[in-house]
Amino acid sequence: MSSTTSETGKAVPGRLASVYSEVQTSRLNISLPLPSVLKTSFNVVDGPPSSAAGNPDGIAKLFPNLFGQPSVILKACDSGAAAKDGSLKIGVVLSGGQAPGGHNVISGIFDYLKERTKGSTVYGFKGGPAGIMKCNYVELSTEFIYPYRNQGGFDMICSGRDKIDTPEQFKQAEETAKKLDLDGIVVIGGDDSNTNACLLAENFRGKNMKTRVIGCPKTIDGDLKCKEVPTSFGFDTACKIYSEMIGNVMTDARSTGKYYHFVRLMGRAASHITLECALETHPNIAIIGEEVPLIIFLQLNSISFSLLFSISIIWLSIPCNPQVQQLISELNEILAQDVVDETGMWKKKLQSQSEELFELFPQAIQEQLLLERDPHGNVQVAKIETEKMLIQMVETELDKRKHEGQYNGQFKGQPHFFGYEGRCGLPTNFDANYCNALGYAAGALLQSGKTGLISSVGNLGAPVEEWTVGGTALTSLMDVERRHGKFKPVIKKAMVELEGAPFKKLASLRDDWALNNRYVSPGPIQFVGPTANAVNYTLLLELGVKA
Amino acid sequence: MSSTTSETGKAVPGRLASVYSEVQTSRLNISLPLPSVLKTSFNVVDGPPSSAAGNPDGIAKLFPNLFGQPSVILKACDSGAAAKDGSLKIGVVLSGGQAPGGHNVISGIFDYLKERTKGSTVYGFKGGPAGIMKCNYVELSTEFIYPYRNQGGFDMICSGRDKIDTPEQFKQAEETAKKLDLDGIVVIGGDDSNTNACLLAENFRGKNMKTRVIGCPKTIDGDLKCKEVPTSFGFDTACKIYSEMIGNVMTDARSTGKYYHFVRLMGRAASHITLECALETHPNIAIIGEEVPLIIFLQLNSISFSLLFSISIIWLSIPCNPQVQQLISELNEILAQDVVDETGMWKKKLQSQSEELFELFPQAIQEQLLLERDPHGNVQVAKIETEKMLIQMVETELDKRKHEGQYNGQFKGQPHFFGYEGRCGLPTNFDANYCNALGYAAGALLQSGKTGLISSVGNLGAPVEEWTVGGTALTSLMDVERRHGKFKPVIKKAMVELEGAPFKKLASLRDDWALNNRYVSPGPIQFVGPTANAVNYTLLLELGVKA
Repeated sequence: MSSTTSETGKAVPGRLASVYSEVQTSRLNISLPLPSVLKTSFNVVDGPPSSAAGNPDGIAKLFPNLFGQPSVILKACDSGAAAKDGSLKIGVVLSGGQAPGGHNVISGIFDYLKERTKGSTVYGFKGGPAGIMKCNYVELSTEFIYPYRNQGGFDMICSGRDKIDTPEQFKQAEETAKKLDLDGIVVIGGDDSNTNACLLAENFRGKNMKTRVIGCPKTIDGDLKCKEVPTSFGFDTACKIYSEMIGNVMTDARSTGKYYHFVRLMGRAASHITLECALETHPNIAIIGEEVPLIIFLQLNSISFSLLFSISIIWLSIPCNPQVQQLISELNEILAQDVVDETGMWKKKLQSQSEELFELFPQAIQEQLLLERDPHGNVQVAKIETEKMLIQMVETELDKRKHEGQYNGQFKGQPHFFGYEGRCGLPTNFDANYCNALGYAAGALLQSGKTGLISSVGNLGAPVEEWTVGGTALTSLMDVERRHGKFKPVIKKAMVELEGAPFKKLASLRDDWALNNRYVSPGPIQFVGPTANAVNYTLLLELGVKA
Repeated sequence: MSSTTSETGKAVPGRLASVYSEVQTSRLNISLPLPSVLKTSFNVVDGPPSSAAGNPDGIAKLFPNLFGQPSVILKACDSGAAAKDGSLKIGVVLSGGQAPGGHNVISGIFDYLKERTKGSTVYGFKGGPAGIMKCNYVELSTEFIYPYRNQGGFDMICSGRDKIDTPEQFKQAEETAKKLDLDGIVVIGGDDSNTNACLLAENFRGKNMKTRVIGCPKTIDGDLKCKEVPTSFGFDTACKIYSEMIGNVMTDARSTGKYYHFVRLMGRAASHITLECALETHPNIAIIGEEVPLIIFLQLNSISFSLLFSISIIWLSIPCNPQVQQLISELNEILAQDVVDETGMWKKKLQSQSEELFELFPQAIQEQLLLERDPHGNVQVAKIETEKMLIQMVETELDKRKHEGQYNGQFKGQPHFFGYEGRCGLPTNFDANYCNALGYAAGALLQSGKTGLISSVGNLGAPVEEWTVGGTALTSLMDVERRHGKFKPVIKKAMVELEGAPFKKLASLRDDWALNNRYVSPGPIQFVGPTANAVNYTLLLELGVKA
């Protein structure tokens, strides 16, 4: 696949100016299996009226038009239902950070509409929600989409982190919807983006506009999930890429015994990535934030350090730990107004937990927290190299023990951060298939006139043919939170459940991992052959497919 | 593959205590294709007498028993030659840093001897050459070897960086050879280790011992190669792992445009890894040390920075750049004796080129060079984060330009270091096959009574069946260098040839890459399917198979 020179090429010169590797090319033309229901005629069947994840009265007030609407499921039928064609005009937008499979959701929507609704048009809004507000779009065609099929990245139409939030912004979205005569918009994003999608759906419905809105669950963090939406796309691929790297480092450690490797993984508050990578690779220690908040971990360091004597791997994903975020927001407040005096009096303005946490950090990290700011005056959280911090802390502790005659070993820490490498890999077969099905489902939901639903594909432990397809009422996933003095609807982030099967699996194995080196090397993701269709442990354990 | 409890298991509890991933398991039982000559009867045919790469008189003096001996090639014959069986006792040792495929060399030797020399014994010396000197070994068996087949790492017998160098150490090696009644030793290592292997062969021959020594070319750096030894094993796998990561980061960059990514790769003086990864992924800038010595690159920063305005990727492998090494060794001398005075008078003791280089470094790097020492008082070279240094330098330059009104963009650099992830991956099909053939070749050479040769497998651009198999006189690869006042034999490191096909390919494409984003995402290494047998660009271009 060398450079293409079609007219549309100009819209995304990056991809089209590119040359493809053999593996990329091999992925372009594969045919993806579909859930059987999507290969036949089907009815879109309503379930019972829905409620909310919490505070139903509050959600009902915020979504007067959508609250209580049923979730739906596609059921195969002899004929007819899907025959109600009529062309549609649909817009699609990518929102937030990249996750492998985004391009497949778009091609899934496109393919569904081409197959089932002759004469339909699909617009790709460019650069995220801002593309909707500015009516910045490209019309998608078979030729335009082709080079992105089963490829990583979000560069087909790119993404953005804007929100459609203010009355003015909603107005802009309305204008775009009217201008393009949109029957629907598909928002591909995480928890906040799907909340936003639901607000947009409510707004359009409230104004009696025909434009419907359907969400799709995206995030490598894996924190957007529930019974009906068993996983978010991208998680499978990202974890497998990180696990490949971790497995290689483990093999290295086993061969040399020279270093203790400290691995930090990309991620936000939830530790699903760490948990999944732990299940795939069996490190000596995995720090799951939901179990051991950072502050406690730091206080318990003598316990952890005693374990360290026998370990070669440990890792963490704590740069955006909630307590650290709290500390940082307090620091931002204080530093905006005060000077940091040498005597440390300024620290008295911190809440006690934050002060305690601050004091636990090594000096280098304290300085980073106080000094390094981005242009908006904020600490650059993701740049805090907690993996190096932990190494420093272990060094300090071991030096102390050496002086006390309690330790006479050699400790060399080797820090690693695996982040950007995982967000844009070629999607695994699972993510490719799952995203394709999510896209088809979004198309089916829009065709059947639904709005305010999130595309839901289930029974994921079974072969693709047996996957279920439907849509879940977004309001049913919501709760109300008070933010900045206002009630806001939120889809609650799914944190690692300490009573859930994946964590219990970890808990049952980790004592053995800590003392014996049970390292597993998952190896590179395979697209062909006996191992190509493996699904991540988290999902299989949660579904009860694996014990 | 869960834990094994055989007696031998105790010797390498690491691997045997492990659990295998599906991909690891899938690699255990594959059957590797062999060059046809290794599937029939063959004669080991001598070539013409050999000379040396340089200074033949010097080499002749250092290797009176081996100098001039012919290289050999295996030629298929009707029968007979290979029938001269009789069991052998062979020791094998891994020397130096890890490279994917080491286990396959060992299993290749083992399989050859089992097939062709009934009753043979193979010993694995543990922990590198020190294992020979201390007679620390394990007897290899089918069961012992099995879990390591086609797996990454060196943990079957582990490696080490000791040298057999002094008369006392040679004596220890002789004692081990006699104690185990060794017919031969196979040394799997890089340029220095193979030089050492030849010295050992010379020593044994000089003392009329029966023990022969055969080398095998190992190093991910790719700097041990010549006409007869077209590549060193591990290079193919390591470059593909790095390229997978680089390609993912490139896709990320193309999707967001938020960062300029600066990637440093593991490696020493030669830039083959950087060159190969560049050919695989098409970055905007690749710094090839052989073309642009670091000092010149830093001086030319205004030129480079003007390019930077349009780039998203750049990378380098300069932590062990020769000029930096020179600077560091001078610093080590000075700091061992002097105090670093504030006025900077100590700098006058640096050679002018070193002082110039030192002054070009940002302050943070200067401090690292002056302060951070390992327990032996040496700068920890690999820890100098040159990727961050370059980012700092670009920031400084762009700030200056902003003040001068010449630049009004946004620059955010994102550093990456890909190192340990690549050394221990599961070997590619190429490395698995190549190493297996190298091991078989070593077995054949020992069986035919050869010594002082390096196992040589050629015609690598053709299908495995057509590969040639032989041995190259190690003395023919050597030159003499004066080190610490003594003449020492050395196999010259193969640096990137600016007139060679791989570099010329880069040179012909990079202007386009610099200005247009031609990023390629090689994706994960595949073991099955249409892309599984791809061979690296460097090798194909050097062989003239690719243009």
